Amino acid sequence: MTRARSQYIIVIGCGRLGSFLANRLSNEGHSVVVVDISLHAFHLLIADQFSGFRVEGDATEQAVLLQAKIDKADVVISATHDENVNIMAAQIAKKRFHVPRVFARILDPKKENYCKAIGVKCVCPTSIAAEAMIAALHNNPANIIV
Amino acid sequence: MTRARSQYIIVIGCGRLGSFLANRLSNEGHSVVVVDISLHAFHLLIADQFSGFRVEGDATEQAVLLQAKIDKADVVISATHDENVNIMAAQIAKKRFHVPRVFARILDPKKENYCKAIGVKCVCPTSIAAEAMIAALHNNPANIIV
Repeated sequence: MTRARSQYIIVIGCGRLGSFLANRLSNEGHSVVVVDISLHAFHLLIADQFSGFRVEGDATEQAVLLQAKIDKADVVISATHDENVNIMAAQIAKKRFHVPRVFARILDPKKENYCKAIGVKCVCPTSIAAEAMIAALHNNPANIIV
Repeated sequence: MTRARSQYIIVIGCGRLGSFLANRLSNEGHSVVVVDISLHAFHLLIADQFSGFRVEGDATEQAVLLQAKIDKADVVISATHDENVNIMAAQIAKKRFHVPRVFARILDPKKENYCKAIGVKCVCPTSIAAEAMIAALHNNPANIIV
Protein backbone atom coordinates (compact mmCIF):
# COMPACT_ATOMS: atom_id res chain seq x y z
CA MET A 1 0.00 0.00 0.00
CA THR A 2 1.28 3.48 -0.82
CA ARG A 3 0.63 6.44 1.38
CA ALA A 4 1.35 10.13 0.92
CA ARG A 5 4.31 11.32 2.98
CA SER A 6 3.43 14.15 5.33
CA GLN A 7 4.90 17.36 3.97
CA TYR A 8 5.60 20.79 5.40
CA ILE A 9 3.42 23.14 3.38
CA ILE A 10 3.13 26.93 3.61
CA VAL A 11 -0.05 28.43 2.16
CA ILE A 12 0.14 32.18 1.58
CA GLY A 13 -3.22 33.92 1.52
CA CYS A 14 -6.24 32.66 3.41
CA GLY A 15 -9.02 33.61 0.99
CA ARG A 16 -11.29 31.08 -0.68
CA LEU A 17 -8.48 29.27 -2.51
CA GLY A 18 -5.89 29.41 0.28
CA SER A 19 -8.29 28.35 3.02
CA PHE A 20 -9.69 25.51 0.88
CA LEU A 21 -6.16 24.20 0.34
CA ALA A 22 -5.10 24.72 3.97
CA ASN A 23 -8.15 22.90 5.33
CA ARG A 24 -7.83 20.06 2.85
CA LEU A 25 -4.06 19.54 3.12
CA SER A 26 -4.07 19.77 6.92
CA ASN A 27 -6.95 17.30 7.03
CA GLU A 28 -4.89 14.94 4.84
CA GLY A 29 -2.19 14.90 7.51
CA HIS A 30 0.30 17.43 6.18
CA SER A 31 1.89 20.07 8.39
CA VAL A 32 0.38 23.31 7.17
CA VAL A 33 1.17 26.92 8.04
CA VAL A 34 -1.09 29.65 6.67
CA VAL A 35 0.17 33.20 6.23
CA ASP A 36 -2.16 36.14 5.72
CA ILE A 37 -1.75 39.88 6.13
CA SER A 38 -5.06 40.01 7.97
CA LEU A 39 -5.97 38.01 11.08
CA HIS A 40 -9.61 38.24 10.04
CA ALA A 41 -8.94 35.98 7.03
CA PHE A 42 -8.27 33.01 9.29
CA HIS A 43 -11.98 32.65 10.05
CA LEU A 44 -12.19 30.55 6.87
CA LEU A 45 -10.10 27.84 8.52
CA ILE A 46 -12.35 25.04 9.75
CA ALA A 47 -11.57 23.83 13.26
CA ASP A 48 -12.16 20.14 12.66
CA GLN A 49 -10.11 20.13 9.43
CA PHE A 50 -7.26 22.57 10.05
CA SER A 51 -4.79 21.77 12.80
CA GLY A 52 -1.84 23.83 11.55
CA PHE A 53 -0.40 27.23 12.45
CA ARG A 54 -1.40 30.75 11.51
CA VAL A 55 1.09 33.55 10.84
CA GLU A 56 -0.13 37.13 10.44
CA GLY A 57 2.06 39.23 8.17
CA ASP A 58 3.15 40.30 4.70
CA ALA A 59 4.49 37.25 2.89
CA THR A 60 6.78 39.34 0.71
CA GLU A 61 8.86 40.07 3.85
CA GLN A 62 11.52 37.47 4.59
CA ALA A 63 11.03 37.88 8.36
CA VAL A 64 7.43 36.75 7.98
CA LEU A 65 8.39 33.79 5.83
CA LEU A 66 11.07 32.83 8.36
CA GLN A 67 8.45 32.96 11.10
CA ALA A 68 6.52 30.42 9.02
CA LYS A 69 9.74 28.34 8.93
CA ILE A 70 10.12 28.57 5.17
CA ASP A 71 13.63 27.13 5.46
CA LYS A 72 12.11 23.71 6.17
CA ALA A 73 9.17 23.89 3.75
CA ASP A 74 8.66 21.18 1.12
CA VAL A 75 5.95 23.16 -0.65
CA VAL A 76 4.90 26.82 -0.83
CA ILE A 77 1.55 27.76 -2.35
CA SER A 78 1.13 31.47 -2.96
CA ALA A 79 -2.58 32.06 -3.34
CA THR A 80 -3.46 35.63 -2.36
CA HIS A 81 -5.77 37.78 -4.51
CA ASP A 82 -2.78 39.84 -5.69
CA GLU A 83 -0.80 38.05 -8.38
CA ASN A 84 2.17 40.36 -7.93
CA VAL A 85 2.39 39.41 -4.26
CA ASN A 86 2.06 35.76 -5.27
CA ILE A 87 4.85 35.94 -7.83
CA MET A 88 7.12 37.91 -5.47
CA ALA A 89 6.60 35.52 -2.55
CA ALA A 90 7.04 32.52 -4.85
CA GLN A 91 10.26 33.99 -6.19
CA ILE A 92 11.64 34.49 -2.66
CA ALA A 93 10.62 30.92 -1.74
CA LYS A 94 12.32 29.50 -4.81
CA LYS A 95 15.42 31.66 -5.15
CA ARG A 96 16.26 32.61 -1.57
CA PHE A 97 15.06 29.55 0.33
CA HIS A 98 15.27 26.87 -2.39
CA VAL A 99 11.85 25.43 -1.57
CA PRO A 100 11.50 22.32 -3.77
CA ARG A 101 7.96 22.95 -5.01
CA VAL A 102 6.39 26.36 -5.37
CA PHE A 103 2.98 27.22 -6.79
CA ALA A 104 1.60 30.68 -7.54
CA ARG A 105 -1.95 31.68 -8.34
CA ILE A 106 -1.95 34.10 -11.24
CA LEU A 107 -4.71 36.05 -12.93
CA ASP A 108 -3.04 36.80 -16.23
CA PRO A 109 -2.06 33.67 -18.19
CA LYS A 110 0.59 35.77 -19.98
CA LYS A 111 2.68 35.72 -16.78
CA GLU A 112 3.02 31.95 -17.01
CA ASN A 113 6.24 32.04 -19.01
CA TYR A 114 7.94 34.25 -16.46
CA CYS A 115 6.91 31.91 -13.62
CA LYS A 116 8.14 28.87 -15.52
CA ALA A 117 11.50 30.54 -16.05
CA ILE A 118 11.99 30.91 -12.30
CA GLY A 119 10.82 27.37 -11.55
CA VAL A 120 7.41 28.31 -10.16
CA LYS A 121 4.30 26.40 -11.22
CA CYS A 122 1.49 28.77 -12.15
CA VAL A 123 -2.15 28.11 -11.56
CA CYS A 124 -4.61 30.44 -13.28
CA PRO A 125 -8.13 29.63 -12.00
CA THR A 126 -9.79 31.51 -14.86
CA SER A 127 -7.93 29.56 -17.54
CA ILE A 128 -8.55 26.26 -15.78
CA ALA A 129 -12.27 27.04 -15.43
CA ALA A 130 -12.48 28.09 -19.08
CA GLU A 131 -10.75 24.92 -20.25
CA ALA A 132 -13.08 22.84 -18.05
CA MET A 133 -16.13 24.53 -19.61
CA ILE A 134 -14.80 24.07 -23.14
CA ALA A 135 -14.03 20.41 -22.45
CA ALA A 136 -17.57 19.95 -21.09
CA LEU A 137 -18.97 21.54 -24.26
CA HIS A 138 -16.83 19.44 -26.57
CA ASN A 139 -17.39 16.15 -24.81
CA ASN A 140 -21.10 16.27 -25.37
CA PRO A 141 -21.96 13.70 -28.06
CA ALA A 142 -24.76 15.97 -29.30
CA ASN A 143 -22.06 18.45 -30.23
CA ILE A 144 -20.37 16.14 -32.72
CA ILE A 145 -21.41 15.25 -36.24
CA VAL A 146 -19.72 12.64 -38.39
CA MET B 1 -13.61 12.61 -39.63
CA THR B 2 -15.71 14.23 -36.91
CA ARG B 3 -16.24 17.93 -36.66
CA ALA B 4 -17.90 20.06 -33.99
CA ARG B 5 -21.27 21.40 -35.09
CA SER B 6 -21.47 25.17 -34.95
CA GLN B 7 -23.62 26.16 -32.00
CA TYR B 8 -25.40 29.34 -30.96
CA ILE B 9 -23.75 30.33 -27.68
CA ILE B 10 -24.55 33.26 -25.39
CA VAL B 11 -21.80 34.29 -23.00
CA ILE B 12 -22.96 36.54 -20.17
CA GLY B 13 -20.22 38.67 -18.65
CA CYS B 14 -17.19 39.84 -20.59
CA GLY B 15 -14.53 39.75 -17.86
CA ARG B 16 -11.48 37.50 -17.97
CA LEU B 17 -13.47 34.27 -18.04
CA GLY B 18 -16.28 35.43 -20.33
CA SER B 19 -13.98 37.10 -22.84
CA PHE B 20 -11.63 34.09 -22.90
CA LEU B 21 -14.57 31.82 -23.70
CA ALA B 22 -16.11 34.22 -26.23
CA ASN B 23 -12.83 34.65 -28.12
CA ARG B 24 -12.09 30.94 -28.13
CA LEU B 25 -15.57 29.69 -29.03
CA SER B 26 -16.02 32.29 -31.76
CA ASN B 27 -12.61 31.41 -33.14
CA GLU B 28 -13.68 27.74 -33.22
CA GLY B 29 -16.53 28.66 -35.53
CA HIS B 30 -19.46 28.92 -33.14
CA SER B 31 -21.97 31.78 -33.31
CA VAL B 32 -21.30 33.73 -30.13
CA VAL B 33 -23.15 36.64 -28.55
CA VAL B 34 -21.61 38.35 -25.54
CA VAL B 35 -23.77 40.24 -23.05
CA ASP B 36 -22.31 42.66 -20.53
CA ILE B 37 -23.79 45.48 -18.49
CA SER B 38 -20.85 47.69 -19.45
CA LEU B 39 -19.77 48.52 -23.00
CA HIS B 40 -16.25 49.03 -21.70
CA ALA B 41 -15.92 45.30 -20.93
CA PHE B 42 -15.97 44.44 -24.62
CA HIS B 43 -12.41 45.72 -25.05
CA LEU B 44 -11.28 42.23 -23.95
CA LEU B 45 -12.69 40.77 -27.17
CA ILE B 46 -9.90 40.19 -29.67
CA ALA B 47 -10.68 41.37 -33.18
CA ASP B 48 -9.03 38.51 -35.06
CA GLN B 49 -10.66 35.87 -32.82
CA PHE B 50 -14.10 37.19 -32.00
CA SER B 51 -16.54 37.69 -34.87
CA GLY B 52 -19.77 37.53 -32.87
CA PHE B 53 -22.21 40.13 -31.56
CA ARG B 54 -22.13 42.32 -28.45
CA VAL B 55 -25.23 43.19 -26.43
CA GLU B 56 -25.02 45.83 -23.69
CA GLY B 57 -27.45 45.26 -20.84
CA ASP B 58 -28.42 43.48 -17.64
CA ALA B 59 -28.67 39.77 -18.36
CA THR B 60 -31.19 39.23 -15.60
CA GLU B 61 -33.71 41.17 -17.74
CA GLN B 62 -35.59 39.04 -20.22
CA ALA B 63 -35.65 41.89 -22.76
CA VAL B 64 -31.86 41.87 -22.84
CA LEU B 65 -31.72 38.09 -23.20
CA LEU B 66 -34.28 38.28 -26.02
CA GLN B 67 -32.12 40.88 -27.75
CA ALA B 68 -29.33 38.26 -27.60
CA LYS B 69 -31.83 35.82 -29.20
CA ILE B 70 -31.85 33.47 -26.24
CA ASP B 71 -34.83 31.63 -27.74
CA LYS B 72 -32.51 30.09 -30.34
CA ALA B 73 -29.49 29.47 -28.08
CA ASP B 74 -27.96 26.01 -27.78
CA VAL B 75 -25.76 27.05 -24.87
CA VAL B 76 -25.75 29.84 -22.28
CA ILE B 77 -22.65 30.47 -20.17
CA SER B 78 -23.22 32.84 -17.28
CA ALA B 79 -19.80 34.06 -16.22
CA THR B 80 -20.07 37.48 -14.58
CA HIS B 81 -18.23 38.28 -11.34
CA ASP B 82 -21.53 38.14 -9.42
CA GLU B 83 -22.65 34.60 -8.74
CA ASN B 84 -26.19 35.69 -7.91
CA VAL B 85 -26.50 37.31 -11.33
CA ASN B 86 -25.07 34.14 -12.87
CA ILE B 87 -27.51 31.86 -11.12
CA MET B 88 -30.47 34.14 -11.86
CA ALA B 89 -29.59 34.45 -15.56
CA ALA B 90 -28.95 30.71 -15.78
CA GLN B 91 -32.29 30.00 -14.16
CA ILE B 92 -34.11 32.23 -16.66
CA ALA B 93 -32.26 30.57 -19.54
CA LYS B 94 -33.17 27.10 -18.31
CA LYS B 95 -36.68 27.56 -16.98
CA ARG B 96 -38.13 30.30 -19.16
CA PHE B 97 -36.32 29.67 -22.45
CA HIS B 98 -35.48 25.96 -22.13
CA VAL B 99 -31.90 26.42 -23.32
CA PRO B 100 -30.47 22.88 -23.62
CA ARG B 101 -27.14 23.52 -21.91
CA VAL B 102 -26.57 26.17 -19.27
CA PHE B 103 -23.38 26.83 -17.29
CA ALA B 104 -22.97 29.21 -14.35
CA ARG B 105 -19.77 30.39 -12.74
CA ILE B 106 -20.16 30.26 -8.99
CA LEU B 107 -17.89 31.33 -6.15
CA ASP B 108 -19.34 29.30 -3.34
CA PRO B 109 -19.21 25.53 -3.96
CA LYS B 110 -22.13 25.15 -1.54
CA LYS B 111 -24.45 26.56 -4.23
CA GLU B 112 -23.71 23.64 -6.51
CA ASN B 113 -26.59 21.51 -5.26
CA TYR B 114 -29.10 24.25 -5.95
CA CYS B 115 -27.75 24.67 -9.49
CA LYS B 116 -27.88 20.95 -10.16
CA ALA B 117 -31.50 20.86 -9.02
CA ILE B 118 -32.46 23.40 -11.68
CA GLY B 119 -30.42 21.67 -14.40
CA VAL B 120 -27.57 24.19 -14.50
CA LYS B 121 -23.97 23.02 -14.60
CA CYS B 122 -21.84 24.89 -12.08
CA VAL B 123 -18.24 25.83 -12.56
CA CYS B 124 -16.36 27.10 -9.52
CA PRO B 125 -12.91 28.33 -10.64
CA THR B 126 -11.54 28.31 -7.07
CA SER B 127 -12.50 24.68 -6.49
CA ILE B 128 -11.17 23.61 -9.88
CA ALA B 129 -7.88 25.43 -9.26
CA ALA B 130 -7.58 23.91 -5.79
CA GLU B 131 -8.23 20.42 -7.13
CA ALA B 132 -5.66 20.99 -9.87
CA MET B 133 -3.06 22.04 -7.29
CA ILE B 134 -3.83 19.09 -5.03
CA ALA B 135 -3.62 16.71 -7.99
CA ALA B 136 -0.26 18.22 -8.93
CA LEU B 137 0.97 17.73 -5.36
CA HIS B 138 -0.25 14.14 -5.19
CA ASN B 139 1.02 13.09 -8.58
CA ASN B 140 4.59 13.84 -7.68
CA PRO B 141 6.40 10.52 -7.22
CA ALA B 142 8.58 12.13 -4.52
CA ASN B 143 5.38 12.57 -2.54
CA ILE B 144 4.70 8.85 -2.27
CA ILE B 145 6.35 6.27 -0.01
CA VAL B 146 5.72 2.53 -0.21
